[in-house]
Amino acid sequence: MAAKVCIINIGNELLLGQTVNTNLNWLGMELASIGLPVNKAIIVKDESEEIKQALQEAWQDNEIVIVSGGLGPTDDDITKKTIAEFFGKDPEFRPEIWENVQQIFKRRNLETPEINKSQAIVPKDFTAFENKVGTAPGLYFQSRDKKLFALPGVPSELQYLFTGHIKEILKKDYPSDAISIRTIHTWGISESALAEKLAGLKIQQDVNLAWLPQTGRVDLRLYGADKTAILSTAEIISDKIHKYVWGYDGDSPAKVLQEFCLRKNVTISLAESCTGGLAGKMITDVPGASGYFNGGVISYHNAMKEDILSVDSSVLSNFGAVSEETAREMALGVRKLTKSDFGLSITGIAGPEGGSPDKPVGTVCFSISSEKETISKRVVFNGDRSSIRFKAAEYIILLLIEYVGREA
Amino acid sequence: MAAKVCIINIGNELLLGQTVNTNLNWLGMELASIGLPVNKAIIVKDESEEIKQALQEAWQDNEIVIVSGGLGPTDDDITKKTIAEFFGKDPEFRPEIWENVQQIFKRRNLETPEINKSQAIVPKDFTAFENKVGTAPGLYFQSRDKKLFALPGVPSELQYLFTGHIKEILKKDYPSDAISIRTIHTWGISESALAEKLAGLKIQQDVNLAWLPQTGRVDLRLYGADKTAILSTAEIISDKIHKYVWGYDGDSPAKVLQEFCLRKNVTISLAESCTGGLAGKMITDVPGASGYFNGGVISYHNAMKEDILSVDSSVLSNFGAVSEETAREMALGVRKLTKSDFGLSITGIAGPEGGSPDKPVGTVCFSISSEKETISKRVVFNGDRSSIRFKAAEYIILLLIEYVGREA
Repeated sequence: MAAKVCIINIGNELLLGQTVNTNLNWLGMELASIGLPVNKAIIVKDESEEIKQALQEAWQDNEIVIVSGGLGPTDDDITKKTIAEFFGKDPEFRPEIWENVQQIFKRRNLETPEINKSQAIVPKDFTAFENKVGTAPGLYFQSRDKKLFALPGVPSELQYLFTGHIKEILKKDYPSDAISIRTIHTWGISESALAEKLAGLKIQQDVNLAWLPQTGRVDLRLYGADKTAILSTAEIISDKIHKYVWGYDGDSPAKVLQEFCLRKNVTISLAESCTGGLAGKMITDVPGASGYFNGGVISYHNAMKEDILSVDSSVLSNFGAVSEETAREMALGVRKLTKSDFGLSITGIAGPEGGSPDKPVGTVCFSISSEKETISKRVVFNGDRSSIRFKAAEYIILLLIEYVGREA
Repeated sequence: MAAKVCIINIGNELLLGQTVNTNLNWLGMELASIGLPVNKAIIVKDESEEIKQALQEAWQDNEIVIVSGGLGPTDDDITKKTIAEFFGKDPEFRPEIWENVQQIFKRRNLETPEINKSQAIVPKDFTAFENKVGTAPGLYFQSRDKKLFALPGVPSELQYLFTGHIKEILKKDYPSDAISIRTIHTWGISESALAEKLAGLKIQQDVNLAWLPQTGRVDLRLYGADKTAILSTAEIISDKIHKYVWGYDGDSPAKVLQEFCLRKNVTISLAESCTGGLAGKMITDVPGASGYFNGGVISYHNAMKEDILSVDSSVLSNFGAVSEETAREMALGVRKLTKSDFGLSITGIAGPEGGSPDKPVGTVCFSISSEKETISKRVVFNGDRSSIRFKAAEYIILLLIEYVGREA
């Protein structure tokens, strides 16, 4: 039985809905990777009583408690004081931390604001971890078989302190096998249709299967302590639904496309209209994209479609900017302009305005042009502007994976 | 005193770090807007005992409990069964829900997978809300002065059910003033330096001030029930730090830029290298961007800088692709190519590879070109590939806001 871990994220902004709690995700992933999956998370306000109640619950039921947020230098940062009170430990000034904070400002050629002196105050019996990327140190308290860690809420600082200090302590004191996770990414089939295809499949008891609907597609996740069982189950499932599977685990559509294109030694380019650069952004999220991605044109204004991509003005006027015909000309145009093996295009209506009965909001046309042929597709996505754009950008990438895969 | 609200988000994927809990944010913002700020959130696994413990805590301390996740048709979806057990209510089959589910599949020209029949089972005495965007109904149970709602975890379904059913019930039964929130967005100054500038500022007791460091910039948030006090405090603060303030509340850099450009009737275009389309994506996140954004060129490969943006090959070879000189040529080139009033450019090293002692990872050069002049900047950002790209894309937008603002 692995040690139980509880995360407490502190911050009004998390509950008022103004900040997305990415720290929970990041810590969740890191902790699972060392065999310490998070058992529970509690999100509370920057209020002393609420924080103490959460500490009480967490400290009672778990061996490891990780607190984030509220360690900054400003008045609303009360986590350190509250933790000190909860454990009955007096605050102490630690000159070496003050020295470190001053160094950080000196390196940026700035005066150290006096307010930062509070960063050097630490509850008695607590260890302070040096923070090289910010001014708030990490805090660590051990009592018998329990550990408490407190980290600043700024993601880069939290990540630095966890990776640089905490991870090693946990790995040493709680050696355990990592949780094995195998994620199967699918595309082009609904969750319940997938479930029907897998109905009757017998899965070993210690293998857990989770269904994770994503924006526009579904992931299946297998996890548990028995790596061999996880992998063999994943293989059986993949075989049953292979035509919908495009990747595994940390694969993103862009990462899979990059591997395909580098292996086949082909280059691509992109003409984006309604996605405004999002598909290019996704492709270049992956380091090394320059090996196959030449670049693209964001042809937001129709004049750019004509002037730069050489889309025929009669095609635009006869079929409209959102049409398979225009998409084909855009893909062809960008391929020739950039001398690429494949030209891709996206043109659609992301909304909220611009829809018509014939072409409702969510209508998006795609095309792939190569020396050999030009293909096109028309799809209607549901959702708001942001999810239509996201689905469209992933769609062209997944469509090319399917196309290049079929060509193989 | 407003009714206390607790959110319970259910799902292993939230604790294993594989899915970001955007539902908490969305609900947090909606509930604050009707004067019911979320008091606490609990994230638990898809396990009956854990869910029951969270229900116990939440139901005891709060008047309103909203549960999300685990209402789907697959085996790992146990929320409905667990809630029924917790409240001691037997499950009932409701034919009208099954009818609705079948209709949804019929509209998509698909057979209804039999597995979806479980969607029509509802605990006795619970109200089921019709879900028009998915197959899982929302659930509602009232007991004396307490309410429990259960929603599917897919964001679009959760949002549909909250907006279409729950919000009205809460507004009617807990009429209260909205929490007033005023967010001040700053740029170009650290959190502690800002705090020093505001030191000594007397703030009314019922006005809360939160410091929210964002990637590359800092937000200040004022909130409380007294709208007049919030707004006047925001005004006082803005006056003290006005040269760092670029927007308020729901403003994004792109939204502010759009307002500026539409008001001044100027058009812009973009040449992106290391950001690969991200700045274009940000600009076109805002509906109506076509009113001033002509489009751009993602000149990822150097050949595109020369061939399409007419960057002089001697500039590229003498100064390198990442240089203020190349940035200037890119900005000029894209402005002329697209016949825009302003051409913007970004070229840099997002990493993890490609840095040198002279130009470390994080070095990014920017330029703004207009008929009148071409300016350029060189900045070194810290962080990983993703945060360097994000900061760089926001930087060019904020730089143009500053530039256009100064011109005003």
